[in-house]
Amino acid sequence: MARPGLTIALLLTTPALVDACQQWLPEMRYHSIDLSEPDQRGERLDLVGILEAQQEQIDALVVEQQLLDATTRGQLLGRGLLFPAVVVGEVKGHVDYHSEELHLANDQLAQLGYTVDAAISRFLRQGRADGRGDGDGLASVDKLSRRLQERLGYLGVFYKRDPSRFLGSLPSEERSEVLDSLQRTYRDLLISYFRDPAASNQALESFVNTAFFSDLPITRTVEIHVDQIDEFWKQLRLEGHKSEFLQDYRLALLDVMAHLCEMYRRSIPPDIPLSGLAAGRHRREADRSVDQEESS
Amino acid sequence: MARPGLTIALLLTTPALVDACQQWLPEMRYHSIDLSEPDQRGERLDLVGILEAQQEQIDALVVEQQLLDATTRGQLLGRGLLFPAVVVGEVKGHVDYHSEELHLANDQLAQLGYTVDAAISRFLRQGRADGRGDGDGLASVDKLSRRLQERLGYLGVFYKRDPSRFLGSLPSEERSEVLDSLQRTYRDLLISYFRDPAASNQALESFVNTAFFSDLPITRTVEIHVDQIDEFWKQLRLEGHKSEFLQDYRLALLDVMAHLCEMYRRSIPPDIPLSGLAAGRHRREADRSVDQEESS
Repeated sequence: MARPGLTIALLLTTPALVDACQQWLPEMRYHSIDLSEPDQRGERLDLVGILEAQQEQIDALVVEQQLLDATTRGQLLGRGLLFPAVVVGEVKGHVDYHSEELHLANDQLAQLGYTVDAAISRFLRQGRADGRGDGDGLASVDKLSRRLQERLGYLGVFYKRDPSRFLGSLPSEERSEVLDSLQRTYRDLLISYFRDPAASNQALESFVNTAFFSDLPITRTVEIHVDQIDEFWKQLRLEGHKSEFLQDYRLALLDVMAHLCEMYRRSIPPDIPLSGLAAGRHRREADRSVDQEESS
Repeated sequence: MARPGLTIALLLTTPALVDACQQWLPEMRYHSIDLSEPDQRGERLDLVGILEAQQEQIDALVVEQQLLDATTRGQLLGRGLLFPAVVVGEVKGHVDYHSEELHLANDQLAQLGYTVDAAISRFLRQGRADGRGDGDGLASVDKLSRRLQERLGYLGVFYKRDPSRFLGSLPSEERSEVLDSLQRTYRDLLISYFRDPAASNQALESFVNTAFFSDLPITRTVEIHVDQIDEFWKQLRLEGHKSEFLQDYRLALLDVMAHLCEMYRRSIPPDIPLSGLAAGRHRREADRSVDQEESS
């Protein structure tokens, strides 16, 4: 049997949360290690010490938000202990660890696998991008990003979607749990959309990542929106409130769609020009001069 | 020098239109042949006779709408003379030739190359799809689709985007002409959106195809929408009309975005599962059973 591709460290305060997370990290694909140290549960975990000791074997973290206080965060950044990370807990719009982290609420863990994939993909992309400007230990990201790429090899660099995790490939029960979870994420996104843009944005990212990595059909995204608005509408009517403002939430759907569309756009590998694989580069130059003549 | 990949037959009533079309079919990529028979211009072109005689060398048609009356259409279908086609003329929402045709208005010919690409891509996809139900000469589509695939080979089957034709690769003058043309298409789309859904839909397809084949950034699509709505708004204010209903046009942008997003989604080649290229198929099955155990 092939070894799992990714080692995911779990740093969580309760056994229930560890179980829930492990349920949504299928063993064939993820090797999760629980670093929550059972004997110390209830006390403060020594996040910095644990990660320093285990850093060589870790590809990504799933970490509970309450463990990431300002002091811990400062120490992690100071020692260059940066990993692709999913922060589990209330989605508040804060940066709890580093700018490439992703957030997932406790009631939406069915999306965890996809969000881990997205966090790694994001981290690798950022590691390759120039001009990272937030000072969160550039050299470390670079080092870790390189290490991840070496470990995952070719597949790491182009780390993208796994068709076996597409909604269409999932057993129906699992599929409906993921969809329910997505619906909750979308609800959170709408509720905070006008009130708390930062929190909404984290929910939006979570939704878009899962939609992308699970290959959610676009019509389904629209359905999720319509269902949620419908639910709001019924509630408002029951309570005797006006409901016209619900139309404004179309902006949220537009926002989601634009992000998702751009994500798809950027994930398409460059195609081969029509006439000839070998002559590709030359043709591009030639085309350009022809175009210039024709457009003048 | 490599031979152009595609032979495009032009069937148009005026030399000016032939020139305009040829300008937007760069010679390095398209070999356009003018079948409008100059000596007969002004009279009725014998579309059926011309296409029957030349069918072996033609990959796609650019044909003027007014040449496709009901009689001609019936004869073309009857003789199985079906080709990927761009119908040039007023975008009315009618089917002028066959259900896979695409439409482009005369003032939007800067998009012609992209629309030809889209028409071929659509035709090939339809040729491969099962259950074509409109009775438009299934066998012919199948035959022509196979022929095109043979001619274009591997590249034909996966006929998609050509990076040398991306907006970012175009000289600036040509780029801005394409963008102006897209803006006009979007305007047509909005104007007919609530009044004439069929016409609007043809404009929408034209917009989405060009956006896809020219790799238009998604933010740019949103800008085109905002600019157009802004223009409408100024005009309404000048004329002393109400402008609140302009908000409803967000539905049009959503529609565009959903179509574009789905087009991108479907064009991503299936990715390789993370652990192992060779073991891909087996892993999918294995993953499925693991998922089933975990989700139960």
